[in-house]
Amino acid sequence: MAITVVGSVAFDSIETPAGKRERCLGGAATYFSLAASYFTDVRVIAVVGEDFGRRQEAVFQARKIDTTGIEHAKGKSFFWEGSYLGNLNEAETHITDLNVFAAFEPKIPESYRDSDFLFLANIDPVLQRRVREQMPDVKLVAGDTMNYWIKDHRPALLEVLKGLDVLLINDTEARMLGGNNNLVQAARGVLAMGPQTLIVKHGEYGATAFHSATTKAEGSKTFRAPALPLEEVVDPTGAGDSFAGGFFGYLASQPELTPAVFRQAMFYGSVMGSFACERFGTERLQEISREEIDKRFNLFRELTHLD
Amino acid sequence: MAITVVGSVAFDSIETPAGKRERCLGGAATYFSLAASYFTDVRVIAVVGEDFGRRQEAVFQARKIDTTGIEHAKGKSFFWEGSYLGNLNEAETHITDLNVFAAFEPKIPESYRDSDFLFLANIDPVLQRRVREQMPDVKLVAGDTMNYWIKDHRPALLEVLKGLDVLLINDTEARMLGGNNNLVQAARGVLAMGPQTLIVKHGEYGATAFHSATTKAEGSKTFRAPALPLEEVVDPTGAGDSFAGGFFGYLASQPELTPAVFRQAMFYGSVMGSFACERFGTERLQEISREEIDKRFNLFRELTHLD
Repeated sequence: MAITVVGSVAFDSIETPAGKRERCLGGAATYFSLAASYFTDVRVIAVVGEDFGRRQEAVFQARKIDTTGIEHAKGKSFFWEGSYLGNLNEAETHITDLNVFAAFEPKIPESYRDSDFLFLANIDPVLQRRVREQMPDVKLVAGDTMNYWIKDHRPALLEVLKGLDVLLINDTEARMLGGNNNLVQAARGVLAMGPQTLIVKHGEYGATAFHSATTKAEGSKTFRAPALPLEEVVDPTGAGDSFAGGFFGYLASQPELTPAVFRQAMFYGSVMGSFACERFGTERLQEISREEIDKRFNLFRELTHLD
Repeated sequence: MAITVVGSVAFDSIETPAGKRERCLGGAATYFSLAASYFTDVRVIAVVGEDFGRRQEAVFQARKIDTTGIEHAKGKSFFWEGSYLGNLNEAETHITDLNVFAAFEPKIPESYRDSDFLFLANIDPVLQRRVREQMPDVKLVAGDTMNYWIKDHRPALLEVLKGLDVLLINDTEARMLGGNNNLVQAARGVLAMGPQTLIVKHGEYGATAFHSATTKAEGSKTFRAPALPLEEVVDPTGAGDSFAGGFFGYLASQPELTPAVFRQAMFYGSVMGSFACERFGTERLQEISREEIDKRFNLFRELTHLD
């Protein structure tokens, strides 16, 4: 089943201990789409500027991602510059230029309306809500957010959370949103805000899914997917979005959302997140084989399973 | 098979968000022994002062831990005071009084000499080595250390590492000892120093075992055991030593060290570490039932296994 994703398509300048790259193709919707494209059809809603040309477009086309909903506006694309020199687990942001994103009014192409899955990547919750309202019939909605929206746009974010099935955020965000330093208690607080499932991403330590009593994946218990201990983390940018893409893409590819499917989806999320870190920007996500994906899935199983 | 452990038996004053306790029974050897005692016979080598009385002795006796090797010296026992107010994952040390430990000369009782397993808890590597040399015939030796010895007593520590089968340390220590911020590369560096297996403890995220090519648990691959997301962490003091006790205690209880047994031991380590956090000091470790242990083991399996 097809996924529609709304979020940023951007250019990133990134510095890590492994080196430096200027203006790579990036953005949450880009990482998400590429990762999800290995599992199912993906349709993007975003806005780009005049600097987004054929070369960038080709990255989406090569993975058969539908870009009908990528609006081309006058001006420059969203730009982010950051570094991970001190700490590979957390970026230090140097520049965030919203550019064409500042006036973004998401429009949903007619051809996207039969999507069964919707992913609201990390953007202004007001925009997330607007998209959600225009797609009332989707089967499953997941979303992401970040500290900025949690701290300074809480009422708008709370409205979005009411309409989410799955929220994917990191540890710090979960503790901040749930208002508790204990992750289990923070998770309970977040689940009371609407989502049936909260997935907390732990970076190099994997991710944990917490479910509310009324989750669709009935019978699901708290589940932890590992992250692969990587020999070399070249660039962690987009690892969380790639986790979301692998997770949601796999869910969308399955006929039914059972607890077993949910667990597998968590593993595929970790798999795609780990690939994302292996090269700068989206380089690695552009050219993985399904065989490599399944091989890593099995490695993750071996890494965590008793037998 | 019996384990001999050498390390501190101490009094701890602890403050956590859950409250405060003055002069609880503590020390690495105490946590280790209690955790391991649920699986096999444990024999302790340590020194205590005149403040260590019948009440403390009774804690060991209740778990049938052999205290023949606990020397009683004039003066006060090792004392530690610390708090976890800002961060439950790392203690802020306020006071470390070595007291009788300053002049500790470990003596191995004759009745301990047939021990097949030896655990060198976190103490001066000079003492660790002395104990190791006096027990040349043990089947398996594991040990712990800390940042202080890694930074300021490296040559002595390197001598100890040469004689270790398994080293158990935390993330920061592994990166520091291996001289690399990437954990996989740091692990490789540490394994080159002697241990066949390095277990890196990640606190609330579990632990990862890395093996050298020549490990005794032949065929073992990198393995990650989870930690239970706990509803309430009352006191994380001793969680790492309890992990070591559960891990090593289970290994010692098994007829053969196979890769499967090793993985189960990692899980039992996580299980005992999680129990340790549930109450102040060693309170919880004093009275767990084997049924509770196995129930939690199964919970850990559910938490991580695809099916």
